[in-house]
Amino acid sequence: MTRTLVFGGARSGKSALAERLAGDSGKEVVYLATAPASAHADDSEMAARIAHHRARRPPHWRTVEEPTALAATLCALCAPERIVLVDCLTLWLSNLMFAPGQDYPDVGTITLPQSFHDERAALLDWLEAPSTGDVIFVSNEVGMGIVPWGAVSRAFADEAGRLNQDVAARCERVLLVAAGLPLALKGAPC
Amino acid sequence: MTRTLVFGGARSGKSALAERLAGDSGKEVVYLATAPASAHADDSEMAARIAHHRARRPPHWRTVEEPTALAATLCALCAPERIVLVDCLTLWLSNLMFAPGQDYPDVGTITLPQSFHDERAALLDWLEAPSTGDVIFVSNEVGMGIVPWGAVSRAFADEAGRLNQDVAARCERVLLVAAGLPLALKGAPC
Amino acid sequence: MTRTLVFGGARSGKSALAERLAGDSGKEVVYLATAPASAHADDSEMAARIAHHRARRPPHWRTVEEPTALAATLCALCAPERIVLVDCLTLWLSNLMFAPGQDYPDVGTITLPQSFHDERAALLDWLEAPSTGDVIFVSNEVGMGIVPWGAVSRAFADEAGRLNQDVAARCERVLLVAAGLPLALKGAPC
Repeated sequence: MTRTLVFGGARSGKSALAERLAGDSGKEVVYLATAPASAHADDSEMAARIAHHRARRPPHWRTVEEPTALAATLCALCAPERIVLVDCLTLWLSNLMFAPGQDYPDVGTITLPQSFHDERAALLDWLEAPSTGDVIFVSNEVGMGIVPWGAVSRAFADEAGRLNQDVAARCERVLLVAAGLPLALKGAPC
Repeated sequence: MTRTLVFGGARSGKSALAERLAGDSGKEVVYLATAPASAHADDSEMAARIAHHRARRPPHWRTVEEPTALAATLCALCAPERIVLVDCLTLWLSNLMFAPGQDYPDVGTITLPQSFHDERAALLDWLEAPSTGDVIFVSNEVGMGIVPWGAVSRAFADEAGRLNQDVAARCERVLLVAAGLPLALKGAPC
Repeated sequence: MTRTLVFGGARSGKSALAERLAGDSGKEVVYLATAPASAHADDSEMAARIAHHRARRPPHWRTVEEPTALAATLCALCAPERIVLVDCLTLWLSNLMFAPGQDYPDVGTITLPQSFHDERAALLDWLEAPSTGDVIFVSNEVGMGIVPWGAVSRAFADEAGRLNQDVAARCERVLLVAAGLPLALKGAPC
């Protein structure tokens, strides 16, 4: 059973690569979308992005939507004959950090909600337990630009980078994607 | 005949590497600059960047300036005994998206001008036709920072990333440059 | 005697990797911190970052703090039985560009202070002289996001990229770090 992290910048082709790897596995693919369901109604830009992703996926893939409870959902879905494709960790992180009603100051230290810490720890615990099925995680690289203004943006960049490190350390295979082309940082090349 | 994409961040050394590859080819080099001619007069910062690039190039290289009609210009210039160096695709994309008189809303869906779609399709068509001469494309990686505020910036990041993917898929050789050092993602290493 | 550049995005794991390389060398490690001492008092976010770094380092490593005079400090510290870990070049660059009392216009050409040019040239001169001891430089990749608004941010991105290129050209080993995983762009892999 293999855990794979596929990460890269915006429009790097990371989702398409992850979908190709999932399809090529020959296993039943379950697509675990972390976009919140409310996004469809509220935000035409997000809705367009989701529709773009959905149009590319084979219609026989089952889709499960779960914006926050990732470890519990993986625990329920993973099975030897299946591969679960999680798209994406960065959106899940954003859902946890920017829950409705959550406010942050513009400067100073950011205190993240307890649910963020709990869900993050649950995912890393799940990754350390013996694997029960193949998983591919898609994630964004967001730390290679100018350090953003605003304590909240910096906190998000920090957490996204730390999450990539912690997930990569627990995966057998890590692929960085740029211009649609994969580069193996860990495990087998494509 | 080889098509090469050299891409990387701002001040990564991508142009210098592309110029070295062009010079080492032993062929006649034509430098296809996509900076609009008006930039020289309007914008002292852009003028300084252009002067910096120009000072580094051998004086016997012919320079052709074309801000938008890239496919037609490549079609006219490419020849077996020549290598055309296009610097750069990201500026060309910016010229197409931000033509004078073109306005975009701050939020919501961005509708790009028809000339953008036409020129983009013409470039990809040209890349799919049999090659008539060597070309090196320089492009920017802009998607590895925090997702920018503003729908226009996000649309630009999306289009820049998609363009890199589509051009990379049609090139025989793709080099990512960081800290002045190349990394081959496709084709022969440097 | 080896000079190594370890660079990557924010929270890429570059400092942790550099610390591991320093510790694994078996030599006496001197940690050269470029964070200005005043940061501890003025800025709770910076203080938290410094404390996070410090907690990870072995207590027997000597720490030297030097925000600007890098070449002179390296000259004084380097010795065959020692390895000096400089964390980080990007903060040093920021200290030189944004010295107290230094103002920049929002648009147009940025004129950097003479002390910036002097210290930068001194570092490159020192790197070209015969090596007197091992050094590891940590630096940030900041050029792979959307080009930032504001002439000062663009100037900083330009200088950070140029510095990485110039230091990388003078190092025997260059490692790019992403998601905690190193990629050798020059010299031996990890």
